[in-house]
Amino acid sequence: MSAVAPRASADVWNGAGRRLFMQDVGLRDGLQAEAVFVPTADKIALVDALSEAGLAKIEVTAFVSPKAIPALADASEVMHGITRRPGVVYTVLVPNVRGAERAIEARADELNLVMSASESHNLANLRMTRAQSFAGLAEVAAMAHRAAAAVNVSLSCAFGCPMEGDVPVQTVLGWCGHFVEQLGARGVTLCDTTGMAYPTQVVALVRAFRERWPGTELTLHFHNTRGMGLANVIAAMDAGADRFDASLGGLGGCPYAPGATGNVCTEEIVHALQCMGCDTGVDLERLIAAAKRLPPLIGHAVPSQIVSAGRRLDLHPRPRDFESIRERALARDV
Amino acid sequence: MSAVAPRASADVWNGAGRRLFMQDVGLRDGLQAEAVFVPTADKIALVDALSEAGLAKIEVTAFVSPKAIPALADASEVMHGITRRPGVVYTVLVPNVRGAERAIEARADELNLVMSASESHNLANLRMTRAQSFAGLAEVAAMAHRAAAAVNVSLSCAFGCPMEGDVPVQTVLGWCGHFVEQLGARGVTLCDTTGMAYPTQVVALVRAFRERWPGTELTLHFHNTRGMGLANVIAAMDAGADRFDASLGGLGGCPYAPGATGNVCTEEIVHALQCMGCDTGVDLERLIAAAKRLPPLIGHAVPSQIVSAGRRLDLHPRPRDFESIRERALARDV
Repeated sequence: MSAVAPRASADVWNGAGRRLFMQDVGLRDGLQAEAVFVPTADKIALVDALSEAGLAKIEVTAFVSPKAIPALADASEVMHGITRRPGVVYTVLVPNVRGAERAIEARADELNLVMSASESHNLANLRMTRAQSFAGLAEVAAMAHRAAAAVNVSLSCAFGCPMEGDVPVQTVLGWCGHFVEQLGARGVTLCDTTGMAYPTQVVALVRAFRERWPGTELTLHFHNTRGMGLANVIAAMDAGADRFDASLGGLGGCPYAPGATGNVCTEEIVHALQCMGCDTGVDLERLIAAAKRLPPLIGHAVPSQIVSAGRRLDLHPRPRDFESIRERALARDV
Repeated sequence: MSAVAPRASADVWNGAGRRLFMQDVGLRDGLQAEAVFVPTADKIALVDALSEAGLAKIEVTAFVSPKAIPALADASEVMHGITRRPGVVYTVLVPNVRGAERAIEARADELNLVMSASESHNLANLRMTRAQSFAGLAEVAAMAHRAAAAVNVSLSCAFGCPMEGDVPVQTVLGWCGHFVEQLGARGVTLCDTTGMAYPTQVVALVRAFRERWPGTELTLHFHNTRGMGLANVIAAMDAGADRFDASLGGLGGCPYAPGATGNVCTEEIVHALQCMGCDTGVDLERLIAAAKRLPPLIGHAVPSQIVSAGRRLDLHPRPRDFESIRERALARDV
């Protein structure tokens, strides 16, 4: 568990001395959107690669109905197969009591529960009212506490609902309060489910959360749907956040905009934050190597621009005829 | 010409009262990379659409050899066909004296000259040493001054060279000094030609430029190759910059990374800055409508995530069976 995040430095653009915690959600949030079933052994190898790369937390899988999400039908096998690296938190998504039982049996460090800040989105996505979802979360949280597993609650649409529009800040903070004070959640994740967050809003919400619950782990889960992912991460950092979800390879689409980008990409975010001097705890080279394993497994390229373009100082050779170009140029000066 | 940029506000995330100047380069930097020839009438219509959308400056075309860049062979026709909107600056790229003659004849408001901060990139790209390029720029600038056209110099690789790596800040500032003090340039554009810029570096370079040449128009030209485009724009803003190049639809690739993103996308940047409360002077709806004209003209989709996903408050309908979902959910509470 992280301590209270450091307050914003005088200059957010200089990350020196700023410790951040990177959490990968690609194997759950990403793979659940893929048509193919990635073999269990490959999933295990990817989780282990992420552990070795220094991720602070890894969302390994979801204990959901295999009929609903066949891609994650091997949740228990994956959890039993991974090598637990000390210090890494292995979290799993859990939708209900049945999932919680399986997650606890599989020795998940943390159960990640989910509901939406918007009534329309909660109904459309989870087929329950928010009050009904919250009652279910309370049951699951009680089970987790008895099993000494930590609880995180992910609040979808915290920055806007694709059907309702803006969600009032007081609504978002109201649900966060329920999670912290009634469910005893160790952490809360504010999810930008369809990429509606923008920096001004992010700063206001993170500051408000930090002031009310300084001891609660706060994660920001941004999507890059409208190109604002990294800017939102930096804005959140400036407001005192230090934990970010991101997805290996940028896996995970946006259901409301086919072809649009979904989750922010872990290696893009880590690359940018490391350029800025932040301490992400991540070995970027290992992380990129893990991302490069994805395309053959899922049958298509990943959105990651770091996989496409390399790191900023991955240099390119000069043209083959560079010396003759130079000689011809210099000859003109004679 | 813009006045000296306002100094950074206390909170860069709140754009209220911040006037920014958006400059579109899609018709030059974007179209020159396309395989098809966009008909002259469509180019003219796009320039006029950008004028009507409120862009501060439009790079209309390049006066280059039609053999080198056939896509822009109609530079003169386009310049003569557009409707000049008062207050909009119509600029054109000019590589040499021959191009300058044609640009002046076509009554360009501004001639945009280009050379690279890196010797390797200048040789590989322009087949001249930097000293030779600068001598050529001086000839062109003298012609422009005689014709009362303004001069802007775009410095490629100002944030790094894909062959040499980091370019020392003193090298970049040294060339900027030559442009301002020896060529009498009204403006300088710092170009992140292959997407190597990162926020910490951007802040340092913009601050240094602003301190030395507070009366010179400074433009930042970012690429989104590694996902840092918008973050770099905001960092530059925080350091006192107020002019940004961007490309309609996000047109314009990166020659060193096939498939990777190139220029930052005008409607993505304007959308984000408007969300933050900045005054960009741009009518976003008209701008998006202009971007949507591109795919049939160029024969493929544009990278723009705003064209794909819409603005953040472009809402989606609830599912068709939403009312029955709600009724079934509520029935459970009885």
